[in-house]
Amino acid sequence: MTDLRNPHVHHITELSDDEIFAAHEGGKLTIRTARPLKTQRDLSISYTPGVARVCTAIAEDPSLAHRFTGTGHTVAIISDGTAVLGLGDIGPRAALPVMEGKAQLFDRFAGLNAVPIVLDETDTDRLVDVITALAPSFGAINLEDISAPRCFEVERRLADALDMPVMHDDQHGTAVVITAALRNACRLLGREITDLRVVISGAGAAGVACARMLLDAAVTDVVLLDSRGVIHAGRDHLNEEKAALAEMTNPRGVSGGVDEALAGADVFIGLSRGHVPEEALRGMAAAPILFSLANPDPEIDPELAYRYGAVVATGRSDLPNQINNVLAFPGIFHGALAAGATRITPEMKLAASRAIAQVAEEQLDVEHIVPSPLDARVAPAVSKAVAAAWMEREG
Amino acid sequence: MTDLRNPHVHHITELSDDEIFAAHEGGKLTIRTARPLKTQRDLSISYTPGVARVCTAIAEDPSLAHRFTGTGHTVAIISDGTAVLGLGDIGPRAALPVMEGKAQLFDRFAGLNAVPIVLDETDTDRLVDVITALAPSFGAINLEDISAPRCFEVERRLADALDMPVMHDDQHGTAVVITAALRNACRLLGREITDLRVVISGAGAAGVACARMLLDAAVTDVVLLDSRGVIHAGRDHLNEEKAALAEMTNPRGVSGGVDEALAGADVFIGLSRGHVPEEALRGMAAAPILFSLANPDPEIDPELAYRYGAVVATGRSDLPNQINNVLAFPGIFHGALAAGATRITPEMKLAASRAIAQVAEEQLDVEHIVPSPLDARVAPAVSKAVAAAWMEREG
Repeated sequence: MTDLRNPHVHHITELSDDEIFAAHEGGKLTIRTARPLKTQRDLSISYTPGVARVCTAIAEDPSLAHRFTGTGHTVAIISDGTAVLGLGDIGPRAALPVMEGKAQLFDRFAGLNAVPIVLDETDTDRLVDVITALAPSFGAINLEDISAPRCFEVERRLADALDMPVMHDDQHGTAVVITAALRNACRLLGREITDLRVVISGAGAAGVACARMLLDAAVTDVVLLDSRGVIHAGRDHLNEEKAALAEMTNPRGVSGGVDEALAGADVFIGLSRGHVPEEALRGMAAAPILFSLANPDPEIDPELAYRYGAVVATGRSDLPNQINNVLAFPGIFHGALAAGATRITPEMKLAASRAIAQVAEEQLDVEHIVPSPLDARVAPAVSKAVAAAWMEREG
Repeated sequence: MTDLRNPHVHHITELSDDEIFAAHEGGKLTIRTARPLKTQRDLSISYTPGVARVCTAIAEDPSLAHRFTGTGHTVAIISDGTAVLGLGDIGPRAALPVMEGKAQLFDRFAGLNAVPIVLDETDTDRLVDVITALAPSFGAINLEDISAPRCFEVERRLADALDMPVMHDDQHGTAVVITAALRNACRLLGREITDLRVVISGAGAAGVACARMLLDAAVTDVVLLDSRGVIHAGRDHLNEEKAALAEMTNPRGVSGGVDEALAGADVFIGLSRGHVPEEALRGMAAAPILFSLANPDPEIDPELAYRYGAVVATGRSDLPNQINNVLAFPGIFHGALAAGATRITPEMKLAASRAIAQVAEEQLDVEHIVPSPLDARVAPAVSKAVAAAWMEREG
């Protein structure tokens, strides 16, 4: 994908299988002692008999665990392998390389320890039980690649059961970055986020969380599409999550498919594998914002997106404005752990999205509505904003 | 404890709380990316979109997981916190410093990744279910500090259910090092291991495993003591494990307490918190072997042990002949993983004990029947022997 109208599209050399597999040989993480163990005395301090004093202190005052173990900066990345990238239900073993990659990113961008945990268990009740049982090993839990609608219940029940930050990143990481991108697209185009008509295609983990977050961010007109068309209160067979969303979204009572949804809309957010035809784009309001995030094939053909859209974003690293949740999760977890947060609140997610938008603001243009995934300023800014949002709530 | 008769006793400066807690601040492990992630291209290889090719390959051929993820050299150290050091049931959070310390040792001595997992679950069935569910994340499982008799069933069921090495180190690590030490004590004293009368005090995890391993090593006369006295087939209320041991041990049908057990015995192995009176030592055979391993207070007062014993070992780092399972577990897991073993067999444990004994043989004397815990030759020798024992079985 190289011959686009937009003259500023970046190119990336095609990745070869050889270099991908070579980079995975032996796994992608190292777990090392944080201190040298050279002498008998070093062993006696870190292990028996010295360690017993630390154990006793934590048994007497469990709040010391965060200080004298790694839990204060250790995140579990937990998946059951049921919704991995665009690959679907490939099982825990095949999902592990993704979790290792994510752990690398936690190290790279936030200096956090992260442990990949893949579970051979897909029953919702048992998944919640297993994760609850292993939770004391960690300071926070990043749920990953768990299929919808199970992911909503699993996250909700764990967040309620555990006194630690729990976040399903496929939902909220993506929603936070999209919200940041939409804020900056509005700023660039001189529009108010509250006036927008937004259409979200895809009612899986990311689509549902994005709809909820945009409502939290004061967008008033959100229409959600799934594979059967627009979600509205009159539709049959809506699952619990979609029924709740039907109540909260679609204030004009739109029904039908993508054409009906996009008629007069200002924003399209694609989080599905659907395809948007040119006719539907023609029906949108003038100078629309087009976030077409399916990977590797965006819902809107890039050539059409750049022709019709005033601002375009994709999920691809070879195109400008990559919506990549690496902009969100390292800083969100870092900030939550640093603040001693016991959950991730909507305010913390909104604070994260504002922080991401602010970093990009400094050099805002149509190709830079979000920072580069490699921008080292992002995670510290997000961490600070998220921690402050928690503290304010606690205040 | 410094003023002992034995002139060769080593001294170690008392550890201070300050230095112990300082060494635990922030935990004892770091988890880092194994490769630098500098460019957009690096991200695209380790994470999306490149990682999808590795996931797909593993989904098609699960045997590739060991090569292209970390599982080929990653051990989970799993505890429910019910039998931690001499501290007892202190719960998962307070047990975590021990598991982190053990992970440091896996790195230091075998270069393995090890992940501390503490579980908020003590029911045997659910413990087995939870550990089975998380097993695909790892290449091997080191069970740790799980109370007896639950530990026997948990280990047995997991070893049967999972196609990977599973070992409860409190049982077998200790048994392997004791067996090595006993081999070298015999060599030093010119005795045959098969002729010994051995008394083991303590029928918890370590005592039971030690009894079984000595029988595997061709010792014929083992008598096991618990807090109620000698275990024999006629005793009431024996649990399943002890009933099985009553059948396998105590060929002369001894009954009574420590005095009756030690009468004429050649070897005492203390793995309890009991106390052995001087009269009982007087009743032993001439020049006995005394392994008095309770920590920090050995079952036999050290002054008495050095007066009566021909060879003395303890669990203490400030006395000679420290029986420390760090001599065993790093090499056992390294060898099992290197060989692709799907379980830890009795032959692998015997091979490990012979390898440990052989390293010490080079400078064998009454104070050096086992190598120092810091001896860098041990883990590679154990690994090689364990891998060879598995390969031979597979042959």
